[in-house]
Amino acid sequence: MSVAAPADPRNTDAGRLVVRCPDRPGIVAVLSRLLADVGANITDSQQHSSDQVGGTFTLRLEFVLADLAAHRQQLEGALSLLARQWGMTWRLTEATHRPTIAVFVSRTDHALQELIYRVRAGDLRAEIACVVSNHPDLEPVARAAGIPFHHVPVTPESKAEAEARALELVGGVDLVVLARYMQVVSADFCSRFPERLINIHHSFLPAFVGANPYQAAHDRGVKLIGATAHYVTPELDAGPIIEQEVARVDHRATVEDMRRVGRYVERQVLAQAVTWHVEDRVIVEGPRTIVFA
Amino acid sequence: MSVAAPADPRNTDAGRLVVRCPDRPGIVAVLSRLLADVGANITDSQQHSSDQVGGTFTLRLEFVLADLAAHRQQLEGALSLLARQWGMTWRLTEATHRPTIAVFVSRTDHALQELIYRVRAGDLRAEIACVVSNHPDLEPVARAAGIPFHHVPVTPESKAEAEARALELVGGVDLVVLARYMQVVSADFCSRFPERLINIHHSFLPAFVGANPYQAAHDRGVKLIGATAHYVTPELDAGPIIEQEVARVDHRATVEDMRRVGRYVERQVLAQAVTWHVEDRVIVEGPRTIVFA
Amino acid sequence: MSVAAPADPRNTDAGRLVVRCPDRPGIVAVLSRLLADVGANITDSQQHSSDQVGGTFTLRLEFVLADLAAHRQQLEGALSLLARQWGMTWRLTEATHRPTIAVFVSRTDHALQELIYRVRAGDLRAEIACVVSNHPDLEPVARAAGIPFHHVPVTPESKAEAEARALELVGGVDLVVLARYMQVVSADFCSRFPERLINIHHSFLPAFVGANPYQAAHDRGVKLIGATAHYVTPELDAGPIIEQEVARVDHRATVEDMRRVGRYVERQVLAQAVTWHVEDRVIVEGPRTIVFA
Amino acid sequence: MSVAAPADPRNTDAGRLVVRCPDRPGIVAVLSRLLADVGANITDSQQHSSDQVGGTFTLRLEFVLADLAAHRQQLEGALSLLARQWGMTWRLTEATHRPTIAVFVSRTDHALQELIYRVRAGDLRAEIACVVSNHPDLEPVARAAGIPFHHVPVTPESKAEAEARALELVGGVDLVVLARYMQVVSADFCSRFPERLINIHHSFLPAFVGANPYQAAHDRGVKLIGATAHYVTPELDAGPIIEQEVARVDHRATVEDMRRVGRYVERQVLAQAVTWHVEDRVIVEGPRTIVFA
Repeated sequence: MSVAAPADPRNTDAGRLVVRCPDRPGIVAVLSRLLADVGANITDSQQHSSDQVGGTFTLRLEFVLADLAAHRQQLEGALSLLARQWGMTWRLTEATHRPTIAVFVSRTDHALQELIYRVRAGDLRAEIACVVSNHPDLEPVARAAGIPFHHVPVTPESKAEAEARALELVGGVDLVVLARYMQVVSADFCSRFPERLINIHHSFLPAFVGANPYQAAHDRGVKLIGATAHYVTPELDAGPIIEQEVARVDHRATVEDMRRVGRYVERQVLAQAVTWHVEDRVIVEGPRTIVFA
Repeated sequence: MSVAAPADPRNTDAGRLVVRCPDRPGIVAVLSRLLADVGANITDSQQHSSDQVGGTFTLRLEFVLADLAAHRQQLEGALSLLARQWGMTWRLTEATHRPTIAVFVSRTDHALQELIYRVRAGDLRAEIACVVSNHPDLEPVARAAGIPFHHVPVTPESKAEAEARALELVGGVDLVVLARYMQVVSADFCSRFPERLINIHHSFLPAFVGANPYQAAHDRGVKLIGATAHYVTPELDAGPIIEQEVARVDHRATVEDMRRVGRYVERQVLAQAVTWHVEDRVIVEGPRTIVFA
Repeated sequence: MSVAAPADPRNTDAGRLVVRCPDRPGIVAVLSRLLADVGANITDSQQHSSDQVGGTFTLRLEFVLADLAAHRQQLEGALSLLARQWGMTWRLTEATHRPTIAVFVSRTDHALQELIYRVRAGDLRAEIACVVSNHPDLEPVARAAGIPFHHVPVTPESKAEAEARALELVGGVDLVVLARYMQVVSADFCSRFPERLINIHHSFLPAFVGANPYQAAHDRGVKLIGATAHYVTPELDAGPIIEQEVARVDHRATVEDMRRVGRYVERQVLAQAVTWHVEDRVIVEGPRTIVFA
Repeated sequence: MSVAAPADPRNTDAGRLVVRCPDRPGIVAVLSRLLADVGANITDSQQHSSDQVGGTFTLRLEFVLADLAAHRQQLEGALSLLARQWGMTWRLTEATHRPTIAVFVSRTDHALQELIYRVRAGDLRAEIACVVSNHPDLEPVARAAGIPFHHVPVTPESKAEAEARALELVGGVDLVVLARYMQVVSADFCSRFPERLINIHHSFLPAFVGANPYQAAHDRGVKLIGATAHYVTPELDAGPIIEQEVARVDHRATVEDMRRVGRYVERQVLAQAVTWHVEDRVIVEGPRTIVFA
């Protein structure tokens, strides 16, 4: 088990800057000069330049700046200017910021429960704005945590209508998490949340596909049960991978035991991926991710 | 992360037998004959004989026996006879049996929450009979789960009295779990729950002792944060170890981050240890345990 | 990393018995009585009964019997009798027995080096009888370890002939290990080594197939590099899985780095699988394995 | 198991810069400007600022600079200037540089063998200049790898003399690795290799001290066997920790089995620590390390 150590989120002077642009010499110097000029002290930085020709430069900085809120406009102006010069996308966040999350579930609660626990424990700095489900089963779980619950049934006929209803309910949420939501979401739905839609699914070595992968994995006697958290994109069945982990089983595990073990891996992997996303540690680069864990 | 696969607990014909006695040739033959004679089919067995001279034989059997309840008296009679002949202690349990647990806590809820979750998920086949705490903080957690909560304040002066009160409250519970209970329990209290009192504490490589072990571990730059679940005995500061696990941290982790990571390891290790205990997988042998995981 | 603890292989009185038969009540009693009657003391046993109706019973016993060699004939006679009565296959091995292994390689030496190291360290109780390769590159590695090396080039035209030559060279070896042998072996070759032919290959979550799986895995940004050791069967592309493990990579890993990491996982997984096989811990049951680790 | 992905060491244009100084705003801007001005492109960077007041700034940069060797003098001049202004220590290394290592051993070869393997495989970019031992046992291992072997016996009376002899033999080596060298080295010896002397030792949770820690750990039934690689300092019995890892054992493991498992953890942890050191990923900061893994 591994749990990332988030930067101190109670420090109102702490901020972070995430940048992505075509790789060119001098970009680090320019950005660090910008921060130095406003008096910010960089406390942590991670950078990656992809190794392909014409590669992408990605940078995540944590910094401390007295009276950050007051300097925000100035920083944003300077970053906008650089963005044009360097073809740069950027995100400037105050560490105290708590993004909002809509969690989609069906009938199993392990992934939702873990997200609720971590938010409450202060380990996941976000606010679960609502839970949306195609089944009513988990309403008590959401209610007990004081989170609005919306039951949006889905049938083959009502699918488009249900998605429209769900979109309306989640509104301008910062992130959508599919926490064992047993429905395929449409390409249109995905395109509303670019790089802001996270899903969790089981994984095996090697992969087992078809109607009942757990049964297939059991029949081959796999020794590791895995889970993969990834972004969902309109084009890809499974988009850029954020995090993966496995747990060990042996020959005594029944198919149901394997599902049971899988649930503990899934909750861990999903919670880790969501935490990294919320802390601006994940940068999508085409079909893959840069994770500054 | 590893999660044990429990035997099917819904099968009313399923039972298990745990045996411990001085090692002598023939003991397996005698016990398996006994089960065969009543028509039981052994579905899983694990045995261990300690390698010392005059060693101890330990055996855990899972079996299926049609109409187990009806055969129980017959089996118990035969086992009692063998117990005298072989100097044997034994425990015969129906798989559907759900032992009762009293959980002692102070102010942090991570270990308690995990136990509650696993009981509810059906992964820990037990009933949390009550939560006892020297602080009122976690009453809402217990209440939300429908578990009686008892606030038993402890002061240096009232310690003996408080323990007497706690004993009264937990009554004839099958197992006591100290889930981050920040009080030392007395030798007398321990002796009431021989091999039935489990504690969790943090661990490091190497050990850091004194007032603030997390600070000491941080100052040395440890890379692994661990936890140990163990039985508490009247004699030993820390008794027979049931389970241990670690999580990785790096130089960026503050003392508070290390505590945070530690909580996830603790909840995992304690829940695993309690589950193994409840499934009769842990056998104490002097200062150590046999764990038929 | 996990390394199995083998039974003491220097004890000439130590033996093990592995049994597989249709599951019927009483089989444990019969077998343990047989051992008790010759004076053997069972020091470790693991049993598994598959949960399907008409399931298979598998048992692995370690025992100590003074003057084991002298009792061997008597035990074998009794086991042969039981084999007929119970439809049982069995294997009786003295712990001092060192099976012979033929290792097939191509150009990379990591898996071979690890096998050589573990044999020399006494952690893998076997003898590497020879190394066979379709390339001459690893001859110095084999020679340095004092192991006969056979260069058997393979071309599409000479494949059948080369296999015949290899078969001749390995002779009556107990086990064949494909330690990164980059040739597909024929169904006929496989059928010569039923449940005695082990292969290692890389694995990913999810699976990546095609010409360059590492490139594909890199492009998707996988976080775990895995390896699977399995038996090779005439029918299955990849047969019953013996062992699997993963190692973590991050976005900085190039395709070449991923291969590098993969090599460390492969050597660990293959050495573990071979060790378990050699210690009679792996029992094939149809398309899967029982591993009494 | 985890294996770091080293930067491409064959690229003669690739270099790295490691810097440590008192933390002050602007330091990143100054350093990145310096590199930009000579035309270097930063391909990877990691930074850490300790959270204490008056904390330390540490930075590791990988960069690509056409004709790096030609620019070396210019860069060194500029860095020397900055060093005075900012109270900075720095290390500029070409990726093709292969530091020299002296390995001290006694009788067990697992750690030495792993270092030899990794050097040969190209995963550890260093040259083992010599092996020094107080016993002659491992001479064949060194010889087979073409490494000079020096037998320097140590007795209580000859200790000082032996160390002097060893110092003479290792000469101006870049790094000294104690790979299960069963002798305590003197404070004077340590002071010759500041931040360049690495040791490996076993670790347990909790710690077991005294004459036979494995026996003590066995008697308590520990479930994890660990190892710690650390720098040796004149003051500290065990200095700044570089890396730690554990492996799992169960109740069946004898003391000898635990040692066996421990050897696999030790070789992995030591090889990882040495690799990180050689790649300039480890920065000592007082009693702890920053590891830019």
